[in-house]
Amino acid sequence: MKIITDIISLRTYLKDKQSVSFVPTMGNLHEGHLSLVRTAKQHADYNVVSIFVNRLQFSPNEDFNQYPRTFERDCSLLKEAGVNVIFAPSEKILYPVQQEFLLSLPPLARTLEGRFRPDFFQGVATIVLKLFNIVQPKTAVFGKKDYQQLLLVREMVQQLNLPIEIISGETARSSNGLALSSRNNYLREEQRLEACRLYQSLLLIKQEVISGNTDFKMLEINAIKNLIQHGWKVDYITIQRSTLTPAKPNDKDLVVLGAAWLGKTRLIDNLEILD
Amino acid sequence: MKIITDIISLRTYLKDKQSVSFVPTMGNLHEGHLSLVRTAKQHADYNVVSIFVNRLQFSPNEDFNQYPRTFERDCSLLKEAGVNVIFAPSEKILYPVQQEFLLSLPPLARTLEGRFRPDFFQGVATIVLKLFNIVQPKTAVFGKKDYQQLLLVREMVQQLNLPIEIISGETARSSNGLALSSRNNYLREEQRLEACRLYQSLLLIKQEVISGNTDFKMLEINAIKNLIQHGWKVDYITIQRSTLTPAKPNDKDLVVLGAAWLGKTRLIDNLEILD
Repeated sequence: MKIITDIISLRTYLKDKQSVSFVPTMGNLHEGHLSLVRTAKQHADYNVVSIFVNRLQFSPNEDFNQYPRTFERDCSLLKEAGVNVIFAPSEKILYPVQQEFLLSLPPLARTLEGRFRPDFFQGVATIVLKLFNIVQPKTAVFGKKDYQQLLLVREMVQQLNLPIEIISGETARSSNGLALSSRNNYLREEQRLEACRLYQSLLLIKQEVISGNTDFKMLEINAIKNLIQHGWKVDYITIQRSTLTPAKPNDKDLVVLGAAWLGKTRLIDNLEILD
Repeated sequence: MKIITDIISLRTYLKDKQSVSFVPTMGNLHEGHLSLVRTAKQHADYNVVSIFVNRLQFSPNEDFNQYPRTFERDCSLLKEAGVNVIFAPSEKILYPVQQEFLLSLPPLARTLEGRFRPDFFQGVATIVLKLFNIVQPKTAVFGKKDYQQLLLVREMVQQLNLPIEIISGETARSSNGLALSSRNNYLREEQRLEACRLYQSLLLIKQEVISGNTDFKMLEINAIKNLIQHGWKVDYITIQRSTLTPAKPNDKDLVVLGAAWLGKTRLIDNLEILD
């Protein structure tokens, strides 16, 4: 496995590789990332994983500085997973000057996460576009845990005519259902036990919807109340179409999404409800 | 020479071509475009020229509908020039749905042309990015006549890490100095004679600056007055650094740029003043 930190070396190394898959990450890897890597490896001969904590997608009040950085451990995990190249550029490499070409995004970027994290998707889309142009993969894998991000990246690829296939990876969970996330590291022991309530709330809604309950508003409100009673601060719990437009009672292909704070840690999760 | 109108056919055709140069155009070709094509052909084995009148870069009050479309003549000229592929997509192909991923641009896009044509550069940058992603050239050629556009495309390529070399082509002129432009077609016979005054005004400024005149403001004002006296409406005549930041008296590497209306036709031109 090669660790490459600059763009020219990466391009030189990948020059003759016809079939490259790519998994962009911010490091602090867990089983969720490794599962994306396994998916990626099924789709191409060479696999590149990037590790870069992207300042552009953090608002000034967010956790850019605290975001866990565990580079050496990440490298061991990726080596074990059979990754060919880790691309780990510095900020100087990716943002040698202030990034002034940014993507302006569709309304999908202003709902849900976009409402609560106004800089997030522009920062994500811009870095993903840059990384795509650097790596030039055939295939890139994004996790369903960041469901809205997955949809936006898919739409970006279509609208900008990028020659890349976007593949989705399932959300990895701990045994109690908690979606794996680097931000779980912020949780104290007792919070970690409580954290699975977000998943359980979404699962309850999913089961209710499958069993025919069409009072989406009531399902959402009950879940929010329950979380608040257990000390959470809820940003949203919402049942949407899988395209992330408002769901009506008889719609097929739904997704229930949630974002909520446990102390100072913001967690997100979602479950698809497909026919 | 192949004429290709859809993205999949183009990608299939270019699949094994290692070395592709690209000249994006809006058609209505003249010697200026052909000179860009000759430059492009020197830099790669295969040459692609696109013809697409890009609605996105026209403001609602501009000349999108009247813009001259001369497809058959363009094809003959390009065949004669030894172009390998004309990519001539319809609007449905490039904008199958409303384009919602757009580029948000640096301050450079809001001066000069950007002040008078507020939608122009976002439309240009977005279509150029899309075409780059479709054609995936090694090299692309842009004319110096659209000086600010050339700089913005160069900066876009850097900031978005596109693996493309941007080459500039000199401005082609008619015998009286008038910069060749598709919009010259709008000029009536007597306007065509008058039109070279824009070039002459820029040339006079260039000569004055070279001979040591550092009163840039006065040079600009005199040129503007002269044009107005001859029936022009002037958007700007300005001496700038070649990076398009305001010029100071002892700066090297300047460019003098002008944009002015002759009747209903808006013409632009520029001359570099290099050391």
